[in-house]
Amino acid sequence: MEKVIVVGAGVMGSALAIHLGNNQVAVNLWGTKWDEKVLKDMESTRRHSKLEANLSESISLFYEEQLEEAFEETKLIIIAVSSKGIESICKTISPYLNEEHIILSVTKGIDEDNLYTMSNVIENALPEELRGKVSIVKLGGPIRANEIANAKYTEGVFASKNIESVKYAQKLFNSSKFKGGISADIEGVELCAAFKNAYAITMGIVEGLEGDMDNPKAALMARGAVEMANIVEAYNGSRETALGIAGVGDYYVTAQGGRNRTFGVLLGKGKTKAQAMDIMENQTVEGITATYNGYKLLKKLESQGKFNIREKAPLFQELYWILYEGKPVEEAINSYWESKDI
Amino acid sequence: MEKVIVVGAGVMGSALAIHLGNNQVAVNLWGTKWDEKVLKDMESTRRHSKLEANLSESISLFYEEQLEEAFEETKLIIIAVSSKGIESICKTISPYLNEEHIILSVTKGIDEDNLYTMSNVIENALPEELRGKVSIVKLGGPIRANEIANAKYTEGVFASKNIESVKYAQKLFNSSKFKGGISADIEGVELCAAFKNAYAITMGIVEGLEGDMDNPKAALMARGAVEMANIVEAYNGSRETALGIAGVGDYYVTAQGGRNRTFGVLLGKGKTKAQAMDIMENQTVEGITATYNGYKLLKKLESQGKFNIREKAPLFQELYWILYEGKPVEEAINSYWESKDI
Repeated sequence: MEKVIVVGAGVMGSALAIHLGNNQVAVNLWGTKWDEKVLKDMESTRRHSKLEANLSESISLFYEEQLEEAFEETKLIIIAVSSKGIESICKTISPYLNEEHIILSVTKGIDEDNLYTMSNVIENALPEELRGKVSIVKLGGPIRANEIANAKYTEGVFASKNIESVKYAQKLFNSSKFKGGISADIEGVELCAAFKNAYAITMGIVEGLEGDMDNPKAALMARGAVEMANIVEAYNGSRETALGIAGVGDYYVTAQGGRNRTFGVLLGKGKTKAQAMDIMENQTVEGITATYNGYKLLKKLESQGKFNIREKAPLFQELYWILYEGKPVEEAINSYWESKDI
Repeated sequence: MEKVIVVGAGVMGSALAIHLGNNQVAVNLWGTKWDEKVLKDMESTRRHSKLEANLSESISLFYEEQLEEAFEETKLIIIAVSSKGIESICKTISPYLNEEHIILSVTKGIDEDNLYTMSNVIENALPEELRGKVSIVKLGGPIRANEIANAKYTEGVFASKNIESVKYAQKLFNSSKFKGGISADIEGVELCAAFKNAYAITMGIVEGLEGDMDNPKAALMARGAVEMANIVEAYNGSRETALGIAGVGDYYVTAQGGRNRTFGVLLGKGKTKAQAMDIMENQTVEGITATYNGYKLLKKLESQGKFNIREKAPLFQELYWILYEGKPVEEAINSYWESKDI
């Protein structure tokens, strides 16, 4: 029986563990001290209460101090922590890593300091002797944790420069209810995972401005997909990545509901960023950071002559101005619509 | 002041007339005998009751017998009839056509007899001396009639082989609330307009089967977009057409609600095609015919060595089998999911 370790017992890490457990894979689910309560709860009930799903017998639970033990006999390491925690977690697990390991990441975002995608952050956080040797796979696509944990049909994509690693992950994950495709465009998949959160805010904004209408949202659905294709292409990725499950698919699910959209709706209804955050009790809205770091990334590409923000991502440009330069939403969205006349 | 004629006073024809009227364009809205009641109603109230929108003064109304009069001084002819009526309406208007005219069509579908797209049906229904001379523009994209009539932000795309005609139409239509882009891929836009109705049925089916879950619908959102790109490409069109407003945009709006989705949900919940149609009181479900004619078209492309249905459109293949060969929905959807393992 193959054995994997899931690093991080948050909602997504737990959901992936439950899915793999149901798929007859032995899973060591390891959590930090922040996960202690949920680990204890799962230990006593063999159930994840928030996900409303039971843990199969093949799942073992490990606490922070049991990391070495949790690594035993594992080949696939699933990293399911937030983008803020990823660098430090990579350093934490480094002592237990070897060249045979495959790291699979579900973390989304763009690194603020170096404007790296998450796979590059992981690569750079590895001990020097393992860089370029441990292979890194990104699992992208529209995966709501509660749905995959409850065996609702889910599609994703495994992206990596190493096709053997992708196939290994695919074999463990794929079931009658989960299908992960294959892509070599790991950075394209990662960029879509980050930028779709930003575009989901624009969908909320236009809903707040125009009411719950279909035409404006459909326009932004298509626009976000096209701009993501432009961005991926500028990064030497494939436009097909934006057309598929990691782009259109993930953008769709993010725009249907969730914090990014809710935040956008509040902005569209005239709230300031601060007021909106206040109403949302300062919950994390991933798209805000994605807009900030994404914009810096696009500016960098622009300075290298590889991108033209106004031409290739005018909607994203307006979103940045709304969030970071105080441009009124109505004026910004009107400017975007007017850019279509050019 | 430019003058246009709208041929067909159904909901979409009326909505486009109202939009153009609000845009200071003189519009002759002409209806057949089937439109007589709604024309009379608009005449007395200067309002379209179903669209809940007023008619500007620049809209004039014409009855069936006033066709010649309605054509006076017009250059742009907007054909807004159903695919079943398009050939006969083209013959009806033929006596009044000349080389200067531009025909703009919003009709969706694939012709059953010759497997033509609508622009080809129109072309072939023209008097021989006008074929290749009257230019034909397709207006595609996600346009709900009630929203465009009420000045909700709407984006579309004008597609034609004649760029001058596209620009002419664009100038009349574009406003602060409507933006029509430009495309040379008229057949690609038309194929998306037809096939998206079929894919919207699959979204309904999976909703009926799995409940109102995000992951499965997101998977089919992406899958439909990719298959439409494959289909358009096989027809010598551009994959970009499927990525943009005519593909992803229009598919999104169709899948959000409407008869195709409702019909699909009923199938997903175990109703037969006949039971579902019965529940829906035999209203037209465009995706059913689109599946039938679309499948014949793909078979034709396949016989010419230009397409492989199982490989390039496996989801569409299963839909055809559900609708026309009685394959049980659950089995069909499972077969589709399983095709992802290959």
